[in-house]
Amino acid sequence: MSTPDLPEFFDEFTERDWRSDADGTVRIAMIGLGWWTLEKALPAVERSELCETTVLVSSDAERATAAADANDTVVRGLTYEEFHDGAASEKYDAVYIATPNAVHLQYAETAAELDKAILCEKPMEASVERAAELVAACESVPLMIAYRMQTEPAVRRARELVREGFIGEPVAVHGAMTQRLLDINSDTDQWRLDPDLAGYGASVMDLGIYPLNTARFVLDSDPVSVQASMSASHDAFSDVSDERASFRVDFPDDVSTVCTASQNAAQSSHLRITGTEGELELDPVFFPDEPRKLRVRRGDLDATLDFDQRSQMTEEFDYFADRVLSETEPHPNGEHGLVDMRALEAIYEAGEGDSPVSL
Amino acid sequence: MSTPDLPEFFDEFTERDWRSDADGTVRIAMIGLGWWTLEKALPAVERSELCETTVLVSSDAERATAAADANDTVVRGLTYEEFHDGAASEKYDAVYIATPNAVHLQYAETAAELDKAILCEKPMEASVERAAELVAACESVPLMIAYRMQTEPAVRRARELVREGFIGEPVAVHGAMTQRLLDINSDTDQWRLDPDLAGYGASVMDLGIYPLNTARFVLDSDPVSVQASMSASHDAFSDVSDERASFRVDFPDDVSTVCTASQNAAQSSHLRITGTEGELELDPVFFPDEPRKLRVRRGDLDATLDFDQRSQMTEEFDYFADRVLSETEPHPNGEHGLVDMRALEAIYEAGEGDSPVSL
Repeated sequence: MSTPDLPEFFDEFTERDWRSDADGTVRIAMIGLGWWTLEKALPAVERSELCETTVLVSSDAERATAAADANDTVVRGLTYEEFHDGAASEKYDAVYIATPNAVHLQYAETAAELDKAILCEKPMEASVERAAELVAACESVPLMIAYRMQTEPAVRRARELVREGFIGEPVAVHGAMTQRLLDINSDTDQWRLDPDLAGYGASVMDLGIYPLNTARFVLDSDPVSVQASMSASHDAFSDVSDERASFRVDFPDDVSTVCTASQNAAQSSHLRITGTEGELELDPVFFPDEPRKLRVRRGDLDATLDFDQRSQMTEEFDYFADRVLSETEPHPNGEHGLVDMRALEAIYEAGEGDSPVSL
Repeated sequence: MSTPDLPEFFDEFTERDWRSDADGTVRIAMIGLGWWTLEKALPAVERSELCETTVLVSSDAERATAAADANDTVVRGLTYEEFHDGAASEKYDAVYIATPNAVHLQYAETAAELDKAILCEKPMEASVERAAELVAACESVPLMIAYRMQTEPAVRRARELVREGFIGEPVAVHGAMTQRLLDINSDTDQWRLDPDLAGYGASVMDLGIYPLNTARFVLDSDPVSVQASMSASHDAFSDVSDERASFRVDFPDDVSTVCTASQNAAQSSHLRITGTEGELELDPVFFPDEPRKLRVRRGDLDATLDFDQRSQMTEEFDYFADRVLSETEPHPNGEHGLVDMRALEAIYEAGEGDSPVSL
């Protein structure tokens, strides 16, 4: 793609290029009622075209019932036990798993047994082994991993520009995601800081996965080697190695991605892809409630595109529902998520040692 | 510093906070008449307050004479031999060394013998050993290494903000500098691609040194460990390891700097410093003829500062002259430059092996 083609390209910026002609409504059971589900996922589904939340599942019966009562479309609140027993399974077509990482597997297993489509939050599970079990358990049902960047219009357009050669050959990628976790949730016993529930660690598992996966998506390529450095000194991070992390992810064709991630730094996120002929930058990019901007540079062109924002989560849910309704495989599927899990494990291994870890 | 103090702070943005009350003119002999000297350094000195170019030194007698004739303030063009013989040494007070890296030492030695102040381009020399020799040879005269970022107003203000705690504790730094060297000079035999003249390599020596040194300056800290990956596949880069490089520079207090550099990618430069409370970004920052912008973020504040641009090179020459006239030590002195040389050597060593290299 050359510069003169850009205006036309950006006219269609927020169009859902993935939308099929399938129609209908996918009824969703949301599993795990943390702040993410209540504050982000529920409102996103309310705004969606193809989804409806009909069931809410929580460890706490009262919490499930209260949340069900507060939401018009929801017909039942269930405990985890009731869910595993198949209660109200005729009331939903799919599940959204937003529990702590280390228990994704058990809900996915039950959902697959109930023949439900599955949208599972990332990272898929707490370890590569458990993620592989999850993929195996879900062979007979649609499984999508909730990489919402892959349906984010600005990210999709960046990917298209890279694919069309707008920046020439990709050379280097910078990516970062940082937030102040304890400002969002001051409880130092929260699961994101507990390796038994979070998995390999706190910052790369929960935040570093964004630049990692988005680089994979935009480059349309998978990592071959990683290198990392991690540190933790704040009391709340005493059980994990990565209050702060910096890591390098090397892709084929000598493309290097350098990333930083921290659960204890000012909120910020960006992705910058530099090529032989031009550059793209998304900043901010990874947080759901911030306006995204795409900066495109090539030769004398240096433009920053503001555009009508789409809800990242609504796009994700509608994409998932579109795939379910049209009976086509979602792109970020289980195998795709497994590649991240292997990369995450390697990044933590590299962070403990001195050497790069090959994939 | 808190947010309310910012307006006053930025009123004084481009002020020369380093300026003493010294007065006068430092007459400069420029050594090495490549495009950088002719197109950047000469015009910068013309615009300066405290400098004047009076002598030009080149390997080529005709080139020296022609350039001398074309510049009003210049009274003599010299060959390298004539310079070493002390010709016209009464016509200049200081030298600016802008030759290939591997011959800085010989001109510095002669300049020191002639009791001249020295402004020496970075990297100081082709190797740590030769750089140390250069420092030793110049003990009796003022020696400044030409890190023009250290007198760049936007960089100085970023440093001040970091020092005053505006971003809290620094957590991570991203930095990059890329350009298309062969578009600037299509000669594949040029010295920047020749390890005998450039030293350890092409991209980190010439470009990566910018984020490396500017991170040191802004953080007011020196690296403790480096890790790197490099590759070269283009024919013109067959004698060096780093057509592309990505490297990590770890600073004390768990502050990681991740950098990319390439002599064969679209022109781009940025430096981003993320802290526990806020973030600063300079983009573009390292190229002399681009407008600099400083973005400051903290809490709800997200402002990008445009300001009257200063010529990076003029600021540098005037700072150097001010230090010479006031008989005070310039900040980026020989010892400071040596720290970079050791880091550069370590980055190339890390790029060849698999392990981080400690400093």
